[in-house]
Amino acid sequence: MPTKNLAFIFTKPPTGVPVPGEHVTVKDVGFDLDAPAPENGMVLETLYVSLDPYLRGLLRDPSIKSYMPPVPLGSPISSQSLSRVVKSNLSDFKVGDVVRHFLPIQEYNTYVAPADLKGARLPMRIDPALGVKDIRHYLGALGMPGLTAYSSLYEIGRPQKGETIVVSSAAGAVGQLVGQLAKHEGLTVFGSVGTDDKLAYIIDDLKFDGGWNYKKEPSTLKVIHRLTGGDDNGIDIFYDNVGGEQLEGAFDALNWHGRIVECGQISQYNLPPADRYPIRNTFNIVVKRLQVEGFLVGDERFGPKWAKEHLTKVSQWLNDGTFVAKIHETVGMENAGEAFVGMLKGDNFGKAVLKVK
Amino acid sequence: MPTKNLAFIFTKPPTGVPVPGEHVTVKDVGFDLDAPAPENGMVLETLYVSLDPYLRGLLRDPSIKSYMPPVPLGSPISSQSLSRVVKSNLSDFKVGDVVRHFLPIQEYNTYVAPADLKGARLPMRIDPALGVKDIRHYLGALGMPGLTAYSSLYEIGRPQKGETIVVSSAAGAVGQLVGQLAKHEGLTVFGSVGTDDKLAYIIDDLKFDGGWNYKKEPSTLKVIHRLTGGDDNGIDIFYDNVGGEQLEGAFDALNWHGRIVECGQISQYNLPPADRYPIRNTFNIVVKRLQVEGFLVGDERFGPKWAKEHLTKVSQWLNDGTFVAKIHETVGMENAGEAFVGMLKGDNFGKAVLKVK
Repeated sequence: MPTKNLAFIFTKPPTGVPVPGEHVTVKDVGFDLDAPAPENGMVLETLYVSLDPYLRGLLRDPSIKSYMPPVPLGSPISSQSLSRVVKSNLSDFKVGDVVRHFLPIQEYNTYVAPADLKGARLPMRIDPALGVKDIRHYLGALGMPGLTAYSSLYEIGRPQKGETIVVSSAAGAVGQLVGQLAKHEGLTVFGSVGTDDKLAYIIDDLKFDGGWNYKKEPSTLKVIHRLTGGDDNGIDIFYDNVGGEQLEGAFDALNWHGRIVECGQISQYNLPPADRYPIRNTFNIVVKRLQVEGFLVGDERFGPKWAKEHLTKVSQWLNDGTFVAKIHETVGMENAGEAFVGMLKGDNFGKAVLKVK
Repeated sequence: MPTKNLAFIFTKPPTGVPVPGEHVTVKDVGFDLDAPAPENGMVLETLYVSLDPYLRGLLRDPSIKSYMPPVPLGSPISSQSLSRVVKSNLSDFKVGDVVRHFLPIQEYNTYVAPADLKGARLPMRIDPALGVKDIRHYLGALGMPGLTAYSSLYEIGRPQKGETIVVSSAAGAVGQLVGQLAKHEGLTVFGSVGTDDKLAYIIDDLKFDGGWNYKKEPSTLKVIHRLTGGDDNGIDIFYDNVGGEQLEGAFDALNWHGRIVECGQISQYNLPPADRYPIRNTFNIVVKRLQVEGFLVGDERFGPKWAKEHLTKVSQWLNDGTFVAKIHETVGMENAGEAFVGMLKGDNFGKAVLKVK
């Protein structure tokens, strides 16, 4: 008799923000917990699932191309997950190990190692020797968002002591790490957030030099002038998670040779093309000799190049209390839809994870 | 008694396209041709003056900052010029030599070498040994526009054999060289131009693979799809001299890891901020991992790094007929204003120069 196995299913392409029950649904897909582990594989019980903005882009009509393949309609959405090994036929993994892997969002998964290991992404065994007490960090500061922050800040932002950086979505999974790394490098750090609680958090807990609630202060250029104390330029790096008006303001506020790390434009993804924010000042790229660059953490120059340094340093800084990484946890597979939509709308405070078991 | 010395004077900051007689004026400023060459200096007679889009940015209210200082009101506008040495007190230059230097646009100039030579831009003696018959090329393909094209195409564009590039303002001083260099590197090359004559020129004379007249086909995305034969992406490099709608189209048309060389946005400079073209698709920078970069030819990574290779190779290709470089000449200092405005409006066909003597 199959065990209940709740899964997070993509049911219909949304045009705006997805609606739980309509575009995404939680459904029992069943699992045979009595079956042995497959040859060359494992049975995994999901502990935590990472909820990230990029997942929204996978919920689309398959005719629309993008940098990652779409989720097939009727199938579970996949994401980075932390799972406990329940049964194993793999010598590298034993029962009780915790592994991180990109898996369908459901309570139980069967994993089979690929026949050709070359280039394959394999599950990573969480190494207790690193001493990270809260394993959820492996989905956040030590996971894909953390590696995203780390690799892109160094590779594109190239922070120099004495410079000034503005980080948008500064209390988010990526933003909070970017800001702390920049402080560590000796920069002046300002952040934009969407609530006063988050503003207090980035200043009091993350030790940013300042910031603003963009819902209360909608002119990015004005607020940067207020924070930097000037009526001219003033910032060297803009770390963009938001796009739209904040990106436009940054074009005006950047110094010569400024860098824009284009990590995301969450304010724009859910809008139909005609409603997207009109940016009229890209000529600043010419006038100020700006560098603007997008990236994917899986690209060789980013994740692969920086992964080892990122894991070593950030785990140490989390352990010794130098770095703070807030996590926003929702409990229970049945709440996956609300947790996902809340993350897209910015209701979460810190890295969004779903606790499954 | 002073000799007549017509100069091209900045008289009033324009808001749109400058009007000769109102914003810029030709005026006799006089010159003492009987005086000897100054100590450590020369007397120069101007042969040709380079007219370039960036000069428009120097005609502004001095309170507006930019990457080059503004021209003082009432003073001559300066530009790259080719001059004949009339008198000389410098051992490196003798009477009759032709030199290239950034000088006030007027018939005669006095040049004094700076006391501290470190970092100073000195006049360059045109070396007859390179065998370039038409010295006007030293203001175009072998001058600042040519070095701009050469250094930025290699440094930012990083052309790879088999890729596709779109060059805007393709019959212009920079564009015609970019396109021919890209052909030389084995790319498929398309160009946008503003007249049918220019379209015929880039295809018949410059051997581009195709192009379009943007005044007849205003949708850059549609025309790129027509040229590349696809309804999806299709280009790897966009060399931007124009900005606005063409830049927006390029964001949509670029392939993953595409590069945008932001050389200029001539469609935007003469517009008040509210009338500038609204770009709504910069999220493509994130989605496609694009690199977008502005530069100044004087920056170390550009002109200084590439100058020697540029001069050697392009002079050879011009001499042996591999490369073509059209020049648009206006004759006479009294026509400086019309020549300047015509260049800004795209009336010129090829590199715009003013023949003075």
